[in-house]
Amino acid sequence: MFENADRTEIEQLGEFGLIDHLTKHFTNTQSSSLKGVGDDAAVLKFGTQHLLISTDSMIEGVHFDLTYTPLKHLGYKAIASSVSDIAAMNGMPTQVLVSIGLSNRFSLEAVEELYVGMKLACEKYKVDLVGGDTSSSRSGLFINVTALGKAEPKKITYRSGATAGDLLVVSGDLGGAYMGLQILEREKRVFMEHSDMQPDLESFDYIVGRQLKPEARIDVIEALNELDIVPTSMMDISDGVASELYHLGNASQVGFDIYETKIPIDPQTVQTATSFNLNPSIVALNGGEDYELIFTIKQEDYDKIKGQMDFTVIGHATESVGKYKLNTESGNSFDVKAQGWQHFSQEN
Amino acid sequence: MFENADRTEIEQLGEFGLIDHLTKHFTNTQSSSLKGVGDDAAVLKFGTQHLLISTDSMIEGVHFDLTYTPLKHLGYKAIASSVSDIAAMNGMPTQVLVSIGLSNRFSLEAVEELYVGMKLACEKYKVDLVGGDTSSSRSGLFINVTALGKAEPKKITYRSGATAGDLLVVSGDLGGAYMGLQILEREKRVFMEHSDMQPDLESFDYIVGRQLKPEARIDVIEALNELDIVPTSMMDISDGVASELYHLGNASQVGFDIYETKIPIDPQTVQTATSFNLNPSIVALNGGEDYELIFTIKQEDYDKIKGQMDFTVIGHATESVGKYKLNTESGNSFDVKAQGWQHFSQEN
Repeated sequence: MFENADRTEIEQLGEFGLIDHLTKHFTNTQSSSLKGVGDDAAVLKFGTQHLLISTDSMIEGVHFDLTYTPLKHLGYKAIASSVSDIAAMNGMPTQVLVSIGLSNRFSLEAVEELYVGMKLACEKYKVDLVGGDTSSSRSGLFINVTALGKAEPKKITYRSGATAGDLLVVSGDLGGAYMGLQILEREKRVFMEHSDMQPDLESFDYIVGRQLKPEARIDVIEALNELDIVPTSMMDISDGVASELYHLGNASQVGFDIYETKIPIDPQTVQTATSFNLNPSIVALNGGEDYELIFTIKQEDYDKIKGQMDFTVIGHATESVGKYKLNTESGNSFDVKAQGWQHFSQEN
Repeated sequence: MFENADRTEIEQLGEFGLIDHLTKHFTNTQSSSLKGVGDDAAVLKFGTQHLLISTDSMIEGVHFDLTYTPLKHLGYKAIASSVSDIAAMNGMPTQVLVSIGLSNRFSLEAVEELYVGMKLACEKYKVDLVGGDTSSSRSGLFINVTALGKAEPKKITYRSGATAGDLLVVSGDLGGAYMGLQILEREKRVFMEHSDMQPDLESFDYIVGRQLKPEARIDVIEALNELDIVPTSMMDISDGVASELYHLGNASQVGFDIYETKIPIDPQTVQTATSFNLNPSIVALNGGEDYELIFTIKQEDYDKIKGQMDFTVIGHATESVGKYKLNTESGNSFDVKAQGWQHFSQEN
């Protein structure tokens, strides 16, 4: 079913291509499969509410570094990041299943810490842990979480529903998790060189917390419901706004114009980015793992969110399919790329 | 939530203890969570049919050895073994979600082979691949499959429903997958020592196939439905009959008497076991990965299965909770243990 040369490196397919490539030959035949691969969660028809389901892996050395990640926080984050995929569909999470693989380096107490964190997250998000699997692994730890949720059929929000003119909104603030990671990596390097130095994380509590213990924005889903807003498209910000713009734009066949001055960034993020000689806006647009929600709403819904502290309109959808434009304070305009951005043209 | 000493090795908890231990403090609060951890699949109430869901990991070097496992077969087996958990609840599988972690040793072509096998299995079992995740891993390959299925509420079969007097039935034949593994391991050793020798697998095609490309017994679920039999308890044979007897007995609070002469074993399994100086009955009771179904039925259902080639009554449930007794041809009786068995007493 696949036709190519003898050996292709997986990187050649690019960041977003592998799963699409691997699954493009699969055809759905079950009438209950409403939406398969290609959004934050699959949508299945079981009864009057629809079932949402999503699965995600976290792998030691790739997604987390145990030298500075407490296992309790890791457990919490594994659940939160999975539950976030259900929120990203405008659904409410209901259950999770957790598979873990463990090398013999982990004691029972270590695994228990992981589950203490998972339990905290399950309680916080009111989800039930209903299944799982534990295996040995030859090296390191991996965690796979499958999250389930439910949603009224007419409220499910896909990536594909945005139309030109819709307002682009983000919840919370951006870039904090990325700068928290930079701080943790810096303290790790310092510790490797001078093991007697204690890390100074206190002045970075907000951004380190954003990295180590992010929250799924279930409260945003509840708020949208109370405000009687069904977004036209939505996803969670796991890879960074720049990347998510691409996903929303591609699925909806629109472009986006966003405004640098509107991007919500916490002062601690700004300050830390500056001290690292990084542009805070680049950090906010490209940093991942904030697990905030990015969504589009119809213009007529603007009055409903106006004054909501936690929502920021950062731009709007355009008819320029595939064009993602950042308008800076100084009146310049740049093309937003999934990694960094390249100069596009002035005032174009 | 956990209280113990500073470092406990995970092995101390035993094979079946870890997941129970880790999840015992989790409480279900969602009304849709009908059955959580502790059976082959969780049972969720969504609409008039119930949803079954199960998740399982396969890890390179632990669950499979790529020196003799074609990736296509591995993909097939990953889906089949997960779908088998849905069959084990007397349900019909509907969807799967697949997460994989890959080191850079794998080319795109290699991963494609894996998915070709998965696609074959999805087609065979009429399940839709509706989601997934691909990650890099630092070493080796892991596959996590979450399987979903549906069942009429009154037909869902748990491990816990057997009562004394119920007949114990297995589908297909036993021990083949284990002996297939022994052949593959032997040929691997030969190949390591003499790389010019070609493996001779042809005379072992049946048992090697049982190991490399097992089938989920969805056809058994369909047959039971046609025969109008709802088993009183059921599970799939992934760890071996001896281990599954323990699970069924423990969940149902019964014991089991089984008869050595009744154990269905393929001639190729018998012959190979004998050539390895292994007792074929021990192999059949303790070998895992056959993915056959083991279930109990009411005595009055016996006439319905009599003459069904694929079903063998191997014993019955007893009131001796926790006693699993093997009666041999010679009139002896042994205690069946999850690994091997120990002499119990003659005619006790």
